[in-house]
Amino acid sequence: MIRFNSDYTEGCHPAILKRLEETNMEQTAGYGEDEYCREAADRIKAVCEAPDANVHFLVGGTQTNVTVIASALRPYQGAITATTGHINVHETGALEACGYKCLTIDTPDGKLTAEQVEKYTKAHFADESFEHMVQPKLVYISNPTELGTIYKKAELEALYRVCRENDLYLFLDGARLGYGLACRENDLTMADIAANTDVFYIGGTKVGALFGEAVVITNPELKKDFRYSIKQRGGMLAKGRLLGIQFLTLFEENRYFEISAHAARLAEKLKDELTKMNISFYINSPTNQQFPILPDDVLDKLREKYSFAYQARVDETHSAVRFCTCWATKEENVEALLADIRAII
Amino acid sequence: MIRFNSDYTEGCHPAILKRLEETNMEQTAGYGEDEYCREAADRIKAVCEAPDANVHFLVGGTQTNVTVIASALRPYQGAITATTGHINVHETGALEACGYKCLTIDTPDGKLTAEQVEKYTKAHFADESFEHMVQPKLVYISNPTELGTIYKKAELEALYRVCRENDLYLFLDGARLGYGLACRENDLTMADIAANTDVFYIGGTKVGALFGEAVVITNPELKKDFRYSIKQRGGMLAKGRLLGIQFLTLFEENRYFEISAHAARLAEKLKDELTKMNISFYINSPTNQQFPILPDDVLDKLREKYSFAYQARVDETHSAVRFCTCWATKEENVEALLADIRAII
Amino acid sequence: MIRFNSDYTEGCHPAILKRLEETNMEQTAGYGEDEYCREAADRIKAVCEAPDANVHFLVGGTQTNVTVIASALRPYQGAITATTGHINVHETGALEACGYKCLTIDTPDGKLTAEQVEKYTKAHFADESFEHMVQPKLVYISNPTELGTIYKKAELEALYRVCRENDLYLFLDGARLGYGLACRENDLTMADIAANTDVFYIGGTKVGALFGEAVVITNPELKKDFRYSIKQRGGMLAKGRLLGIQFLTLFEENRYFEISAHAARLAEKLKDELTKMNISFYINSPTNQQFPILPDDVLDKLREKYSFAYQARVDETHSAVRFCTCWATKEENVEALLADIRAII
Amino acid sequence: MIRFNSDYTEGCHPAILKRLEETNMEQTAGYGEDEYCREAADRIKAVCEAPDANVHFLVGGTQTNVTVIASALRPYQGAITATTGHINVHETGALEACGYKCLTIDTPDGKLTAEQVEKYTKAHFADESFEHMVQPKLVYISNPTELGTIYKKAELEALYRVCRENDLYLFLDGARLGYGLACRENDLTMADIAANTDVFYIGGTKVGALFGEAVVITNPELKKDFRYSIKQRGGMLAKGRLLGIQFLTLFEENRYFEISAHAARLAEKLKDELTKMNISFYINSPTNQQFPILPDDVLDKLREKYSFAYQARVDETHSAVRFCTCWATKEENVEALLADIRAII
Repeated sequence: MIRFNSDYTEGCHPAILKRLEETNMEQTAGYGEDEYCREAADRIKAVCEAPDANVHFLVGGTQTNVTVIASALRPYQGAITATTGHINVHETGALEACGYKCLTIDTPDGKLTAEQVEKYTKAHFADESFEHMVQPKLVYISNPTELGTIYKKAELEALYRVCRENDLYLFLDGARLGYGLACRENDLTMADIAANTDVFYIGGTKVGALFGEAVVITNPELKKDFRYSIKQRGGMLAKGRLLGIQFLTLFEENRYFEISAHAARLAEKLKDELTKMNISFYINSPTNQQFPILPDDVLDKLREKYSFAYQARVDETHSAVRFCTCWATKEENVEALLADIRAII
Repeated sequence: MIRFNSDYTEGCHPAILKRLEETNMEQTAGYGEDEYCREAADRIKAVCEAPDANVHFLVGGTQTNVTVIASALRPYQGAITATTGHINVHETGALEACGYKCLTIDTPDGKLTAEQVEKYTKAHFADESFEHMVQPKLVYISNPTELGTIYKKAELEALYRVCRENDLYLFLDGARLGYGLACRENDLTMADIAANTDVFYIGGTKVGALFGEAVVITNPELKKDFRYSIKQRGGMLAKGRLLGIQFLTLFEENRYFEISAHAARLAEKLKDELTKMNISFYINSPTNQQFPILPDDVLDKLREKYSFAYQARVDETHSAVRFCTCWATKEENVEALLADIRAII
Repeated sequence: MIRFNSDYTEGCHPAILKRLEETNMEQTAGYGEDEYCREAADRIKAVCEAPDANVHFLVGGTQTNVTVIASALRPYQGAITATTGHINVHETGALEACGYKCLTIDTPDGKLTAEQVEKYTKAHFADESFEHMVQPKLVYISNPTELGTIYKKAELEALYRVCRENDLYLFLDGARLGYGLACRENDLTMADIAANTDVFYIGGTKVGALFGEAVVITNPELKKDFRYSIKQRGGMLAKGRLLGIQFLTLFEENRYFEISAHAARLAEKLKDELTKMNISFYINSPTNQQFPILPDDVLDKLREKYSFAYQARVDETHSAVRFCTCWATKEENVEALLADIRAII
Repeated sequence: MIRFNSDYTEGCHPAILKRLEETNMEQTAGYGEDEYCREAADRIKAVCEAPDANVHFLVGGTQTNVTVIASALRPYQGAITATTGHINVHETGALEACGYKCLTIDTPDGKLTAEQVEKYTKAHFADESFEHMVQPKLVYISNPTELGTIYKKAELEALYRVCRENDLYLFLDGARLGYGLACRENDLTMADIAANTDVFYIGGTKVGALFGEAVVITNPELKKDFRYSIKQRGGMLAKGRLLGIQFLTLFEENRYFEISAHAARLAEKLKDELTKMNISFYINSPTNQQFPILPDDVLDKLREKYSFAYQARVDETHSAVRFCTCWATKEENVEALLADIRAII
């Protein structure tokens, strides 16, 4: 079975395991207060060109989303999100379990526009019953989105401008950030993201680490007491250095960007070749998640050899599915998949 | 200023005030454990033909919705609701603040159908990521809905059947229940509602009381420890007899139904006469909330003399607004309103 | 049965009922945005000598405590309270249900001292694991306390000084405030309380109203968006004027203080006479709650004619019980009780 | 600097790292649904002699405590815990943040007795205001406790008997379970624990793993939908196999018990030798945490070379501190510490 169903099917980049071994018997302080965490934070701040940022390391994405959002909102405030946003659909209501409502906006491509956010917010405060409704206060976006789409620099800047004008925080979920930055359509840098959000995170779990997400907080209002929040939400790893060591390794020698580029290139190859076969897509994704629409019988045959995720029924005989590449994807497996699809079709 | 903006602009039915005066200096036990509450509960059980039901009295609607739903759900379970449901839009996220997600279904008329609920629930359990999503466990409906529409007996029965087949609780918010049962299109009785839900409540605040909602629990699973939940959610009135006395008075001499019929008749008069004027409606409501679409300049003139609620912009020059009648509405005011609209148009 | 078990066994002061009747068929705006609420707020601000305060009216005490505290704290912050504090023992975990921890300090008399609060707070921040513990941020006191004791002016001033020095909010639960201010040991005024807290509330439920608590917010940090919080926690009464009318009536003609003085005088009579009988007390309470220690067989006899609350077992044959007086207590009933105790002993 | 301040200062047992490397490029299903997790669960069930148990793997202790307790309680129910319990003092209110109150019982040694639990529970239901207080429903104990003490088999059996008689769940936090089972005073087996609790967990973080806690659920009532809870509370690791691989390795070749025995033996050596030096202890701990009382000037000198945790001030010139041993502690370091203490004293 060759797995394309997600981007967390393998372990981690070998350099990380090597480093874990080298440091294994060292004694360090716990809870992220060790030298590795400090050094990893410094590297990330450098890459972000954000020397005053606070960088914290958490274990997983759901935990990170909850910790960041809960530390930013008052109980009667909510997070604006695309209806397809991960916090709204795939976190078992983790955010609501902490008391916060997702304020959803329907979008065709998983992205929020500056106009949508502005309209939603102004409508809230213009409503005579505004105190009977959850107050919008934070905008949650993901880049790449759950549908693989990405924000262009102009879009992100416009969104952040609207956020500042309307007293909203902008939070970017970068669980797959590397794969977004490495794709050919991208025009954003890590520094652009740091400059155009109040807080964002750099995903490790899906981009070369065993686990881990690095939260970068640039807005001073959100920095205070953040470690209390990490602890309260269960995200403070006892052996915190494991996170420091991983991110340190990923941000050495341009590694994070190089392994992301590998995944991006293979996804582009998949997309280009499927397009040549006249296969259409559920969504035009430029990143490591590709959503081709295929006949159900073709999918059944592919399932004998490959795993992939079911996305949606398109018509009576066709479904959209998701194939992911990642830092560990072997080119030969992509080629085998393409050959098999060609053969079946 | 003549107010049609809501159904809670006046005090209460005079018989209630009289009863409060007669009993004012009596000493009773607190927290709903007095004779008046017991007697009121008995009358409600009789009207519901549900001798085994548990009846509890709470102060307001938001509190009641939260108390009932939070006592029925586990943290990872959610409440299916129409997107327009009161719990989703007009309770400042009270339900989320208690940890529970609203699982929304878009509907044209504020009502949920058996088919929608079945489809939603089956889709949840069929999804390979089902554990990553909030589990549907309770269906929240309101009757009349926030848009004034009502459930027909067959619709409610079908919905309840689907709920039982899919292990879902059915909870009916009856904040305006009297006005639904009293309208000419209605074919439900209070007993039908008790027989076709797991828990529902009979609104007092909008139907003749100073305040108060009577929760009727028929499903034994939901009865246990409910008073703990009332206390925890802030709904246990110290002088609980105030609720007992009010509901006792409302359920004497058919009063609840008679005062509801008054409001229903005036709403129907309003609807019929506006229809004759070729005025169209945002939604076809058979109950005490009417949503005519009027030119903005007409509305501006009406605002000099009447208050009413803004509902939605329909086009550049027309808006939908809401006029409510209630137990206390004076026929002469409805006539004055109709005359003024006729004159302006 | 003559009830001394609590101070909410009767209805309300007759002047309130009269006012409710006079205004019953008036139409007003809902949700506390009517003229009566505005006027009542103005009177309370005048009595508090706090023209810039915000005054809000809620229905009950548990709801008020939760709303105030939840609107003041971040999720990782907690409320310092005496272990006997109402929020810690008698609200079914309402505060925890909103996500906040009670940080308890054991006290002999239900009161917190400036020293205790300072020591607790400094210990928190001095602990190397401080981020692993809930951060103290608000001090909850009640006056009178759950044990009937009161704060002297110097004590309250010292407590508030420590709070400001340590960046803590001071919140005073005044569910029985009138009975505290009216007792002979008291040296505080309402204005003193407003000047020496960040937020407090004036209890109506136990002091002459049908229900209702008036929250007075003097700290600007706590004013923002408070009405969202009221709505979210279920405390926004649809017919909000009922609260305005009640507090307006209580704060006319010195009524609140006069009816409180009546209860205080009867409690003092009870205390003085029991003391003369050589009966000792569980706690030396100067207010309307008295906690005599009596032989169990005496209590059994008293129970035939009187209701009162059980407080604690003192030894094998004696128990402490609680007798409450209130605005509605009849002097003849206190005399009858005293006579019966004298006779039995 | 030689660290004795905690039992999570090193990485993990080398066999685990080796296994992680061997399996690193394998592709597996995510979220704990892989073969390694299944196999590890089977081994744990075998050791527990509990073939019907459900075993789940989570990342850290706070997260595990919250997930288990929140999945067992209704919102108005609470967890009985020693005042010193980890959930009450060192989890930044994580449990309260999920809505649940800690019901604390003061104990001299961090342990709860059957008598205490029975008395607390019976008192709750006997109180006339029982619905105004949080209902006890789960008993949280840790073994070893936060003070290093352990439950004897008879104590645990008595506690579990009382729990069953009073409809309470018994949950054992085994963050340091290995170190408890391996100490010379212990008479419990893993199977005894499984047989005398409803749910417990086996700590990996402090006992040889990089991270990870294995939850063992034996009570069928607690099994349902547990994975939803794990996901909601942020504990579902994407690369779940990392947990499976670690526990599989720990439960091969008796490894978990052998490495625990190493730590236990060194702690006993430390305790025995300090006792010989006439040093007294804050608490008589038989496990890997030792709490000697030492003069402050001695501690200052030791701090130049060793790290240890501050526990409490004992008198003006003495403090209690905590030294931990663990699976990775070197015997030479314990000997050096003992030699240095001997020399200084």
